[in-house]
Amino acid sequence: MDDLMPKIISLCKRRGFIFPSSEIYGGVEALWDYGPLGILLKNNIREQWLKRFVQKREDVVLIDGTVLMHPKIWEASGHLKNFSDALVECKNCHTRFRADHMESGNFVGQGKAETKNQCSQCGGKEFTSPKQFNLMFKTFLGPVEDASHATYLRPETAQSMFTNFKLVQEAMRLKIPFGIAQIGRSFRNEITTGNFTFRTREFDIAEIEYFVKPGTDEKIFEKWVDDWEKFFIDLGLKKGNLRRYEHKKESLAHYSKRTIDIEYKFPWGFAELAGIANRTDFDLSQHAKFSGQDLSYFDEAAGKRYIPYVIEPTLGIERLLLALLIEGYEEVKGGRTETTKAVKEKEAVLKLDKKIAPIKVAVLPLVKNKPELVKKAKEVFETLKAHFMCQYDETDSIGRRYRRQDEIGTPFAITIDFETLEKEDVTIRDRDTMKQERVKIKDLTGILKEKLNV
Amino acid sequence: MDDLMPKIISLCKRRGFIFPSSEIYGGVEALWDYGPLGILLKNNIREQWLKRFVQKREDVVLIDGTVLMHPKIWEASGHLKNFSDALVECKNCHTRFRADHMESGNFVGQGKAETKNQCSQCGGKEFTSPKQFNLMFKTFLGPVEDASHATYLRPETAQSMFTNFKLVQEAMRLKIPFGIAQIGRSFRNEITTGNFTFRTREFDIAEIEYFVKPGTDEKIFEKWVDDWEKFFIDLGLKKGNLRRYEHKKESLAHYSKRTIDIEYKFPWGFAELAGIANRTDFDLSQHAKFSGQDLSYFDEAAGKRYIPYVIEPTLGIERLLLALLIEGYEEVKGGRTETTKAVKEKEAVLKLDKKIAPIKVAVLPLVKNKPELVKKAKEVFETLKAHFMCQYDETDSIGRRYRRQDEIGTPFAITIDFETLEKEDVTIRDRDTMKQERVKIKDLTGILKEKLNV
Repeated sequence: MDDLMPKIISLCKRRGFIFPSSEIYGGVEALWDYGPLGILLKNNIREQWLKRFVQKREDVVLIDGTVLMHPKIWEASGHLKNFSDALVECKNCHTRFRADHMESGNFVGQGKAETKNQCSQCGGKEFTSPKQFNLMFKTFLGPVEDASHATYLRPETAQSMFTNFKLVQEAMRLKIPFGIAQIGRSFRNEITTGNFTFRTREFDIAEIEYFVKPGTDEKIFEKWVDDWEKFFIDLGLKKGNLRRYEHKKESLAHYSKRTIDIEYKFPWGFAELAGIANRTDFDLSQHAKFSGQDLSYFDEAAGKRYIPYVIEPTLGIERLLLALLIEGYEEVKGGRTETTKAVKEKEAVLKLDKKIAPIKVAVLPLVKNKPELVKKAKEVFETLKAHFMCQYDETDSIGRRYRRQDEIGTPFAITIDFETLEKEDVTIRDRDTMKQERVKIKDLTGILKEKLNV
Repeated sequence: MDDLMPKIISLCKRRGFIFPSSEIYGGVEALWDYGPLGILLKNNIREQWLKRFVQKREDVVLIDGTVLMHPKIWEASGHLKNFSDALVECKNCHTRFRADHMESGNFVGQGKAETKNQCSQCGGKEFTSPKQFNLMFKTFLGPVEDASHATYLRPETAQSMFTNFKLVQEAMRLKIPFGIAQIGRSFRNEITTGNFTFRTREFDIAEIEYFVKPGTDEKIFEKWVDDWEKFFIDLGLKKGNLRRYEHKKESLAHYSKRTIDIEYKFPWGFAELAGIANRTDFDLSQHAKFSGQDLSYFDEAAGKRYIPYVIEPTLGIERLLLALLIEGYEEVKGGRTETTKAVKEKEAVLKLDKKIAPIKVAVLPLVKNKPELVKKAKEVFETLKAHFMCQYDETDSIGRRYRRQDEIGTPFAITIDFETLEKEDVTIRDRDTMKQERVKIKDLTGILKEKLNV
């Protein structure tokens, strides 16, 4: 589909998945709010991740650290020095641009007679030399805004897993290998943004710092690449739309011995969804050095003390969510519902996995002008919403209502019709097969629990 | 208990509920990280809130907005002007203090010969006149750090519910009265902190903006006060430890017509846990004015257009979590477990409601030196952790293990003993009654689901 992204963006806004942040004020670049369906979808992805990587594993525990931390952490981690883009500034209007997005060789002092770069804001042709700009948002702890009170909004969640390594290991009596997981808000003052929610200034990362004995790191690294990829496939991404990209030695981040990205085939090409890095003992060693604390681990089985190596699988939740929307979006020729049978319009269906669909069950009285039908439908709705996220809808024709539920990915629609009043049964319509089956109201909760596997 | 707070703080650190943020660097005042048990407890509280106020209600939808927003939002909301403390500065060392915490009348220019205030940092006795200091953390969007690029970390989540009012109402086809709920990270650059996690610089707020027809606001306000309080009681706070505090007219926030706080009896006295405010049409009117957008609502039933009034119940998640820890903490004389029977030590039990307990089930082989027993226990653990958050423990005596689970509030402990190997049954020990019952392994998941009501 050529125009897939505009369709997804439009669906997201129209049906309450994703809105531009501060939209009534004209928005803010690269900031997006999650609407009622978007946040339910996001919460479901988060829950699946927690269930798989924390609840079902004996060797991984969760933590939740603060966004603001001691500023020395960013010295130790190398972020203050290394986490930056080179920018040039237009000498006329002072707008800044990423140097690597400019034609090289026409900055001030480089003495070229003719320049190919032109400022997109004012048309200016002269730029300063490139200067490093840190991508961390700066703020100040306490009322004094000077350098000694400056700190930063975390650009990833990893560091608090390192600084809490000892506290967590001791409190939870953990033995290596073990992992600390975290999922939480992170911030990057990105200069280049775009592709909807792909690159944003505020996002949720899910990551695990998995502490291992040096020497076992390479094998465990491979295992995490497989486990991480399998998670995406189990949520609904096709294996053929994923590929692995191995970073070249010379372009590895300052802390990494090896990094593999898992890329998804977005409509604009393959792009990073997740990554697995072998961070070695870099972080714990740095924090030991900068904090003066002993962060080594005594391995009883091996009978020795060492600084563990760290394998780090990491994942952008909003990127995964976007990939799942793209993967699930289908258009079928009219005829799926009675409304479109006549008009032959195309119909959109969001084939989200049942596990993550924002609304699990729609409850629909066949018509709204029959009080007994509406009463019965509301009773069914009351019962079901104690167990599942449900939506009640009595507006428009039943065909149009099915279509609306298909478009937001609701796996099951329950219709209360005239037969219901006689026989105490309802129809369950399946989003993907469009088949309907009649079941007794008294069995409905159990049947849906089974179908939804909850 | 006189020394209750030190005991809670110690338990939280020792057992992995709450750690000082950046502890290896000496910590940062008023920032706390949630450890493995703390974040599970927090997630469970959050889920209960979402289930009650979003899933089970037809009239409330959830959103998730960004922390960073358009700076004009804070002009419109009044936060830039009003959300501040008056501070004085020591003229010698420049440390700042809250003016209302000083003896009045001895600031510079007020000409007192003798001063009762003394700087706690350097002993200085001269202070500047009080100046307003805004409690919002400031940062800069983009690479230029000047006033025109400044924005703020949200000090509450409310504003994005107002700015998204129209988008949400239209996308979800909502009719007044309806509510928009949000739960998320908020930041305040607090000068006075303390009482463990009670007043912190970073915290999660759960709040609802409930939009109503003007004239119906007062009655709906009362209803929300009741519903909000009932939630706390249903999670385990005793009614006798809660009280309502009605703000006096003259001390209401700039946006409020009426505010009631729900206070909990913390060990240091009654203090705010939650609040309900009648924000009238203040916010929507301000945002309409500052954004130039029409934020009125057309009420079909009433046949007219108006700016809705807003009732806002709000709640600090970490405060509720702290109250629940305090409420649940009990010490009983030794004898609850075989370990303490002899030594007569006091034992701690955390009587958390089953719904929110971080670990639901502990799986314990009676001894660890009997391979068949350990094997069977691991099988049981494997089965159960697909359904519940579980902990496996084979260290120390069984009595000590029961005691450890009591201390973290685990409702059920499953013991695999020698009889298990013959009869395929296990014991379930109840945290509160300490009674044990034997059940067949094949029935265990079902029985626990029923006991835990999931």
